[in-house]
Amino acid sequence: MKADHAQVTRLLKTARGQLDGILKMVEEDRYCLDVSNQLMATQSILKKANRMVLRAHMDSCVREAVDSGDPGEKLEELAALLDKLAD
Amino acid sequence: MKADHAQVTRLLKTARGQLDGILKMVEEDRYCLDVSNQLMATQSILKKANRMVLRAHMDSCVREAVDSGDPGEKLEELAALLDKLAD
Amino acid sequence: MKADHAQVTRLLKTARGQLDGILKMVEEDRYCLDVSNQLMATQSILKKANRMVLRAHMDSCVREAVDSGDPGEKLEELAALLDKLAD
Amino acid sequence: MKADHAQVTRLLKTARGQLDGILKMVEEDRYCLDVSNQLMATQSILKKANRMVLRAHMDSCVREAVDSGDPGEKLEELAALLDKLAD
Repeated sequence: MKADHAQVTRLLKTARGQLDGILKMVEEDRYCLDVSNQLMATQSILKKANRMVLRAHMDSCVREAVDSGDPGEKLEELAALLDKLAD
Repeated sequence: MKADHAQVTRLLKTARGQLDGILKMVEEDRYCLDVSNQLMATQSILKKANRMVLRAHMDSCVREAVDSGDPGEKLEELAALLDKLAD
Repeated sequence: MKADHAQVTRLLKTARGQLDGILKMVEEDRYCLDVSNQLMATQSILKKANRMVLRAHMDSCVREAVDSGDPGEKLEELAALLDKLAD
Repeated sequence: MKADHAQVTRLLKTARGQLDGILKMVEEDRYCLDVSNQLMATQSILKKANRMVLRAHMDSCVREAVDSGDPGEKLEELAALLDKLAD
């Protein structure tokens, strides 16, 4: 994976810490909307990590595949990804 | 635009017809959630048109830019688009 | 519909104007990503109109149903809507 | 939280297991799009958990607040939540 490993790892560990927190909130029977808010906040962190991964993918893997003269598979993957994200 | 013009045009005209319908619903003071549902249905049609446009863009413009040996701008646009859609 | 009719109508007419513009862009065979950007901008306007409609629905219809002592149907509709939007 | 604790907990533990897997994928320098796909799959699980939490919130907390004759705060929270989700 071409994104900065330290940055992505930090985000993922934050998300995991939040998940542990939410598990505890469920156990302690905390208020529904507090749980819901934390779930949405964790989704946002994963989104941010995903955008970081995709940006680096474009700048590295896709660019290299294009430079190598055989970008077919990479472009097909990108088209499928765009289709999924635009849904 | 490289997507099938007839197909995209048909979707856009359907969306426009729905918008006209929603404008009439507002005028007739119809029920909020009926208006809301129609608004979301129209958003879905525009999404579908957008996916069609993006798929054809990948298959034509991006592919051709790559084949021409000067794909830099196209790849940069794609990276920005992915970043927007993944948000 | 309880939202300000003039405000919602203005947004819907803006969206319709944009759709007309996009239809013309397709006809003139404009660049894919310009079409795509306009499609996403129009989706944003419809989202904004929808949020306006939903806010007023909460403040009027739901509130009144609760005050009338028979909110069952309204609450069920809301639960279904939340489920759809959270997907 | 009113949703079935066992079901929500199971989803959260699945999500946490996936996060651990993604952390390992990053460490092992796995392919960007494999990491991205796992990130999106984990987001989907959190979405599913959130929908479960919100459905139970509607059926329990909101319903009870309405029955108690003092639903103002609950309805205001819901309006804010709808606004966020419809964005």
